[in-house]
Amino acid sequence: MSLYVHKYGGTSVGTPEKIQNVAKKLVAEKASTGHSLVVVVSAMSGETNRMTDLAKQMQKKPSAKQMDVLLSTGEQVTISLLCMALEELGQPAVSYTGGQVKIITDDAHGKARIEDIHTGNIETDLGAGKIVVVAGFQGVTEQGAITTLGRGGSDTTAVALAAALKADECRIYTDVDGVYTTDPRVEPKAKRLAKITFEEMLEMASLGSKILQIRSVEFAGKYNVPLRVLSTFVDGEGTLITYEDEDMEKALISGIAFNRDEAKVTLSGVPDMPGIASAILQPISDANIEIDMIVQNIAEDKTTDFTFTVHRNDYAATMQILQNICSELGAKKVIGDDKIVKVSIVGVGMRSHAGIASQMFTALADEGINIRMISTSEIKISVVVDEKYLELAVRSLHESFGLSQE
Amino acid sequence: MSLYVHKYGGTSVGTPEKIQNVAKKLVAEKASTGHSLVVVVSAMSGETNRMTDLAKQMQKKPSAKQMDVLLSTGEQVTISLLCMALEELGQPAVSYTGGQVKIITDDAHGKARIEDIHTGNIETDLGAGKIVVVAGFQGVTEQGAITTLGRGGSDTTAVALAAALKADECRIYTDVDGVYTTDPRVEPKAKRLAKITFEEMLEMASLGSKILQIRSVEFAGKYNVPLRVLSTFVDGEGTLITYEDEDMEKALISGIAFNRDEAKVTLSGVPDMPGIASAILQPISDANIEIDMIVQNIAEDKTTDFTFTVHRNDYAATMQILQNICSELGAKKVIGDDKIVKVSIVGVGMRSHAGIASQMFTALADEGINIRMISTSEIKISVVVDEKYLELAVRSLHESFGLSQE
Repeated sequence: MSLYVHKYGGTSVGTPEKIQNVAKKLVAEKASTGHSLVVVVSAMSGETNRMTDLAKQMQKKPSAKQMDVLLSTGEQVTISLLCMALEELGQPAVSYTGGQVKIITDDAHGKARIEDIHTGNIETDLGAGKIVVVAGFQGVTEQGAITTLGRGGSDTTAVALAAALKADECRIYTDVDGVYTTDPRVEPKAKRLAKITFEEMLEMASLGSKILQIRSVEFAGKYNVPLRVLSTFVDGEGTLITYEDEDMEKALISGIAFNRDEAKVTLSGVPDMPGIASAILQPISDANIEIDMIVQNIAEDKTTDFTFTVHRNDYAATMQILQNICSELGAKKVIGDDKIVKVSIVGVGMRSHAGIASQMFTALADEGINIRMISTSEIKISVVVDEKYLELAVRSLHESFGLSQE
Repeated sequence: MSLYVHKYGGTSVGTPEKIQNVAKKLVAEKASTGHSLVVVVSAMSGETNRMTDLAKQMQKKPSAKQMDVLLSTGEQVTISLLCMALEELGQPAVSYTGGQVKIITDDAHGKARIEDIHTGNIETDLGAGKIVVVAGFQGVTEQGAITTLGRGGSDTTAVALAAALKADECRIYTDVDGVYTTDPRVEPKAKRLAKITFEEMLEMASLGSKILQIRSVEFAGKYNVPLRVLSTFVDGEGTLITYEDEDMEKALISGIAFNRDEAKVTLSGVPDMPGIASAILQPISDANIEIDMIVQNIAEDKTTDFTFTVHRNDYAATMQILQNICSELGAKKVIGDDKIVKVSIVGVGMRSHAGIASQMFTALADEGINIRMISTSEIKISVVVDEKYLELAVRSLHESFGLSQE
């Protein structure tokens, strides 16, 4: 018998009516397919914010440990309500908190990592024909403390359960009907991908297509759990995230991601000597600022230009730090620009096809778009361009790589 | 070092500000007395109703098991918020759900009974100077299912913890400042009792002085836990509920309780033969109607009158059942009256004093109050009188037994 793990996020279970709709979908699926079903749910939308507000009234910087005790009640409410809705439809159901499963995690409160999952009781319940409803986002330490997995953690719960139970598929129900070639708000011709590889999905997600939590995709890839993103509200096949197959290699690229939240900083005329990169980046890291792209050109006249991007919120702080270390390092000057965006093409196809990069650069040049930075990986090429060119760049690349074709 | 268990109900922790006030009180008490403190809290007032409403939208008759999963989140929210408030004041604190303690119960969902409490971790935390905050009202079965103890169950949690930890005192903080000789809304001269026995408290509580859950008083009596009722909002000594001592024997009676919610029914002219009482009461019990007082007079002419009281809400149903069995049992007729009240005097002193009953009846007769039913126990005498005499009866008894004196 096939076993499917479903996951419904906060907007999918945001009201009593929506929970009832989810229950109806589950009962219909069980009736038509006979699948064993494990359902992971998030807190009803709005609940997490409501509780966070309460916490902030109690403590200026609420304790991570107590936040986990507090926030984990959100999913616990949803599992009980969904079980009631299933039982009202005559479907036997059983609820589990993370602690009851036991989903064992480390003790990094607020961002715990799953270490082990006990599946015995769930398997017994599935064998008895029950739908098993599990609270997402939460676990418990070996010592019994309640933990949460951090933002988007319900996805991770679903994938980890699917891996532990050797499920046939893990289905993430959300408010979008799949992964698109790019953001349809920027390129209306964007189309839904039937399939995408784990690696591509990781590159797309980290670049701003915020459908799935990155960690859950890594987890699915590592344990080979077929993962499908689909809509709670509209019927459809969604997008299957899986291992590379022949079909996928035929496509040059799968999608175009972009990120509007970046800023670019350059320390120019830096003496070209060992240890200089770490001398520049250490104070940035010490200030808890995350760095995205890094580019260093070959040295001319024994000096080099060192450029990197940070989140736009960190732009001012980063510029200040660089000003402080500029003379100390014997560099010439600090240059910054927070009116830039990153545009990336992503696809496993580029591994086996030459000329992808030049096709990308030509497409941009044809539109008169100046490229400020370039960075490449195995399955991704990213460029930084002026902010004003974002839509033009995305659309021209979408066209150039044939993603708009039917 | 002395160990105190405190319990704060829903109105005492109903808002963030009130939770902060509780935190301040606890920190002040710890600073001034050095007591080890265990604090049991209820759900914030309103939360239980909110969740019950959600449940009713899911399922016509919500599953008791899932209701426990749902409702137990209420106290879990409070323990986390109170710990945050304590930590904000610099006081180390630790939170426990019922399952984390472990408070082991049977599996009677919605009205579970405590079977065992593991105190090891709490004792370690107290030893480290932490205030231990425990979710009231909830427990867990040996198999790990979440249970709740039913209405007022947080009192039971507090008393059971106090017994298990051998606490010096269990303090129930509420919105009244103690147990009164009678309801001050009926007799403005009513005064707070400094002490009352467990048995008296049981009789007072079951008769309508709804301050503490009956089960928690039984529990406190059984395990000899000194129990004190006092106000969250007003400083004071409250009322200590404890074993009988010499002082208490001196008082003739401790208080006057009453119940407005009763109705009286009589089956008259019933043949006086063995088994008749059960033949009358079995169909009442089968209809889930609870019976309070029962009076049967000696037989005249081989027939008797059988009278009992039920909750006023069950009056119509009870009358109907009696009509149905009247001729079947060969009885003469059914008489009913739902315009009656029960008034009781309660006191361990009556064990060692003669003439209490006649003093009561005289006081009522002096006011021209006709007594419809009488029922007595070791420490209580109850009479049923016409509803219109309630205030007059309570005040005259309060005066007669010297309760109004300073």
